[in-house]
Amino acid sequence: MSRLADYLPILDWGRRYSRATLTNDMVAAIIVTIMLIPQSLAYAMLAGLPAEIGLYASILPLVAYAAFGTSRTLAVGPVAVVSLMTASAIGEIAAQGTPAYLAAAMLLAFLSGAMLIAMGLFKLGFVANFLSHPVISGFITASGLLIAAGQLKYLLGIPAGGHTLPQIATGLVENIGSINLPTLAIGTSVLAFLYFVRLRLKRVLVALGLSARMADITTKAGPVAAVAATILAATMLDLGPQGVALVGAIPQGLPVPALPVFDLELIRMLAVPALLISLIGFVESVSVAQTLAAKRRQRIVPDQELIGLGVANIASAISSGYPVTGGFARSVVNFDAGAETPAAGIYTAIGIALATLFLTPLLASLPQATLAATIIVAVLSLVNVAAIRRVWAYSKVDFSAMAATILGTLFVGVEIGVVMGVVLSLLLHLYRTSRPHMAVVGQLSGTEHFRNVERHVVETSPEILSVRVDESLYFANTRYLEDRIAALVAERPQLKHVVLMCSAVNIIDASALESLEEINHRLKDAGITFHLSEVKGPVMDRLKRTHFLECLTGKVFLSQYDALRCLDTTDRPSTR
Amino acid sequence: MSRLADYLPILDWGRRYSRATLTNDMVAAIIVTIMLIPQSLAYAMLAGLPAEIGLYASILPLVAYAAFGTSRTLAVGPVAVVSLMTASAIGEIAAQGTPAYLAAAMLLAFLSGAMLIAMGLFKLGFVANFLSHPVISGFITASGLLIAAGQLKYLLGIPAGGHTLPQIATGLVENIGSINLPTLAIGTSVLAFLYFVRLRLKRVLVALGLSARMADITTKAGPVAAVAATILAATMLDLGPQGVALVGAIPQGLPVPALPVFDLELIRMLAVPALLISLIGFVESVSVAQTLAAKRRQRIVPDQELIGLGVANIASAISSGYPVTGGFARSVVNFDAGAETPAAGIYTAIGIALATLFLTPLLASLPQATLAATIIVAVLSLVNVAAIRRVWAYSKVDFSAMAATILGTLFVGVEIGVVMGVVLSLLLHLYRTSRPHMAVVGQLSGTEHFRNVERHVVETSPEILSVRVDESLYFANTRYLEDRIAALVAERPQLKHVVLMCSAVNIIDASALESLEEINHRLKDAGITFHLSEVKGPVMDRLKRTHFLECLTGKVFLSQYDALRCLDTTDRPSTR
Repeated sequence: MSRLADYLPILDWGRRYSRATLTNDMVAAIIVTIMLIPQSLAYAMLAGLPAEIGLYASILPLVAYAAFGTSRTLAVGPVAVVSLMTASAIGEIAAQGTPAYLAAAMLLAFLSGAMLIAMGLFKLGFVANFLSHPVISGFITASGLLIAAGQLKYLLGIPAGGHTLPQIATGLVENIGSINLPTLAIGTSVLAFLYFVRLRLKRVLVALGLSARMADITTKAGPVAAVAATILAATMLDLGPQGVALVGAIPQGLPVPALPVFDLELIRMLAVPALLISLIGFVESVSVAQTLAAKRRQRIVPDQELIGLGVANIASAISSGYPVTGGFARSVVNFDAGAETPAAGIYTAIGIALATLFLTPLLASLPQATLAATIIVAVLSLVNVAAIRRVWAYSKVDFSAMAATILGTLFVGVEIGVVMGVVLSLLLHLYRTSRPHMAVVGQLSGTEHFRNVERHVVETSPEILSVRVDESLYFANTRYLEDRIAALVAERPQLKHVVLMCSAVNIIDASALESLEEINHRLKDAGITFHLSEVKGPVMDRLKRTHFLECLTGKVFLSQYDALRCLDTTDRPSTR
Repeated sequence: MSRLADYLPILDWGRRYSRATLTNDMVAAIIVTIMLIPQSLAYAMLAGLPAEIGLYASILPLVAYAAFGTSRTLAVGPVAVVSLMTASAIGEIAAQGTPAYLAAAMLLAFLSGAMLIAMGLFKLGFVANFLSHPVISGFITASGLLIAAGQLKYLLGIPAGGHTLPQIATGLVENIGSINLPTLAIGTSVLAFLYFVRLRLKRVLVALGLSARMADITTKAGPVAAVAATILAATMLDLGPQGVALVGAIPQGLPVPALPVFDLELIRMLAVPALLISLIGFVESVSVAQTLAAKRRQRIVPDQELIGLGVANIASAISSGYPVTGGFARSVVNFDAGAETPAAGIYTAIGIALATLFLTPLLASLPQATLAATIIVAVLSLVNVAAIRRVWAYSKVDFSAMAATILGTLFVGVEIGVVMGVVLSLLLHLYRTSRPHMAVVGQLSGTEHFRNVERHVVETSPEILSVRVDESLYFANTRYLEDRIAALVAERPQLKHVVLMCSAVNIIDASALESLEEINHRLKDAGITFHLSEVKGPVMDRLKRTHFLECLTGKVFLSQYDALRCLDTTDRPSTR
């Protein structure tokens, strides 16, 4: 593969594109398009944007990802969690429905795209590692709850707002008197219908004689059927004047490409949300892409994925869209429907573009309650109570980071929630590694092996202390090493030698080097010699570049056995 | 030792106090008192506070530390770096010389004390591990430069201000025309005298027949001599009216204990500086205490040190003081002068209290330039160019964190500098551990040993992939593990089994568990069985609490050899 194709994977798969692949990709694209239309409208509403923005964000970004992404089947576009984060980020800056709100959404997509591309070019994808699984999983569960709660107002047809659970609850309670009954009727019917589709329809269709695959695909059209039926109902029963909130007139035609407006103050305010959106979008997207790629023994390249998603976001920004990423449900549908190459994404984009051109007039009479019901059904699958229970059972430490994320997200805010989780998991990790396992070791009688004195019957000398550290030495645990050695030495008045066994030490960073020098110096003051043993090659090479080995009062022994043989000889007759 | 004595070490050493110890402690206390008087005045000036505050902060805190601290010889009180941090924290909140400035200093000491005590009680001392050696060392060097630069205005007798190097330089350049010559004369004379004392006096005294120890102690009186001489000069030559800034009238008598005023808004603003002051003060103090304790094979208890320093700061807050910590120079002097127990600290406190009661009238005529010269001589020893060079030679990664700290501190601000260093070292650590060493291993012919295929001639089968990870699995490296295994599998079309050798894995956190499940799931989709080998006992115990072992498509083998023997039997005839 040429270097250019590394950065533009379309050059690779495009060259070998066949008629059979074309057919498979087309079929998948049609199914995904049918699924995407209502979802795009709904997620735009969730992000606080006009419904058509969801469609815009499902055209160019798909083409861009098809050219630059490394997953064969990932379907990008607006997704629930990122839409929520968008609403939360822009909600504090501009009022919904204003041009400023839309401009901020475009800028947010642009910033997020630029950050993703930068991370891809500079191989900074590792930054996403800050987001541990419990933090992400907790965040997604909390987002699902928050989104579902936030959609209740559309189901009930009452005005309410808020970005946290208490705010949303207060808004609902205060306005509970003004429920609009026709809206409620539509909302609950659609909700019931979609749950039936999700949980039962496939079995019913199979019982009626459809193949399992066809039945599966047909169920994906559930939301589209709900959209069509409620548009019809709203038009026939003239529900608009009865207080049922409708989507309203949507500008026909495609967006004219244009750069977002770059306002420095706005960039400053959106920088942190853009970073969090980038990281969370990337982590989610890569995880979906990797799962799907593995099924066909294909592989994805995480650093190139950053670029693919980044270009997709830039594409979204210049076509009046908002931040996008790879979606789980749509990618699975794309994969199951038989998509073989990213060309399926391009065909989907064409499908959405056609819908934007020709179907939008119909959408004016779509009740918002239908979209709200679609969102609720979609996001409740994000709530993963089993995962919470699993983490609780596995590790209380990891659970506390997860709990902080969930509570922070629900009660303080989306960004704060993620940041709280990240900070806590870093703190806990530091705590966990700050006390590495250390063992005082002695010689197994008659062998060259050394074992923990607390677990084995071993030989030790009161004049020699042998300590093994089971972790690399770096700034987080180096002070503990100093403390432990100081404590062990203080307990042993006859001590003449300390030997540090470094068989498990892969890194000694500058902090640890300083600590070793300090330990050496302190032991020297106390009249004790300090030795190392079993130092690994690369660690030794690095130590040789310093003065440490010259200052070391003792020696570096190849093995612990050598150390004991050398240090213990003179005393052996008297101590044994 | 009783449990109470663990928290109140004075109960331990106080019980065994003898007449001989009393004499030694008294001698040390007298010497330290003589050294502390000018230092306390100077550091208070550096913190932007009236000179007497430095004396107040050197009385009660010493008594408090003597009761609660675990070091026998640590001398607490105002120190240069913490004084600079105090000036920087309060400088943005109140104007120097106002009661609000003083109130903020007291509150800062209280907050810092409360944080230290909380960290001690909840065993949170590990938080200090965030500060790596290069960050601390860089910060102290930068602080030294910043402090010295900031004192130049007193030496020149010109008005200037600023908390960063550019601000200070601008202030000096703008006012360079208004240099006060008598001030400059005093400042440079004292500077020259103190340098002579520091670099030559000891040798001269020894040549004159004094013992090395007496000569050493005499040189400590250098600053006091400079203070006395310049007070005399200022009084005799009546320098005040000639524009030489003097310390001015100091209220006689001891401070009346009083709580600081608790203002919520002020607490919010001072919280971060208080935390940084606590952490840096603690790290410095513990390092000094540990060095001195080691010389006599004593030990200190870091968690109890937090409480000792915390109580000292609360004591400072209620006696009109400001944040204090254990000082390097004074502790070494205390130790060298023969102090044996913390009682020496109590005697020093009495000495300072007597000075506050009876000597303060004399200090009114002390030129500020004298104190500035004292500070400059003291802090230039903080600038450690050798340490910078050493870190550069040892590790560019560690150096970059150090450089960020130094540049941040000098050019942006004291707090930002530390925070930049901490964030960068965390990022770099995460980067370093996010790509753990992984090796594809094969069997050394005729043995039960497995080695890296790239370094040794080993036997492998195209159907079995054996991978060894040389690090614990946790959130920072778990995605890399997924990526690497996916890539290795994609290269091997005939693959049937993957065996992960866990001999170096001490922890599998919840993120890593999820990743292992994901890898198992993906391999299963690709028709590959996933096995583990050489899993450590504690790790296995934890895995048994999950469903992972039930879902695992393969087995957990006690040794890699067992794994190969079991998985490879059927194929052996065909592959070898």
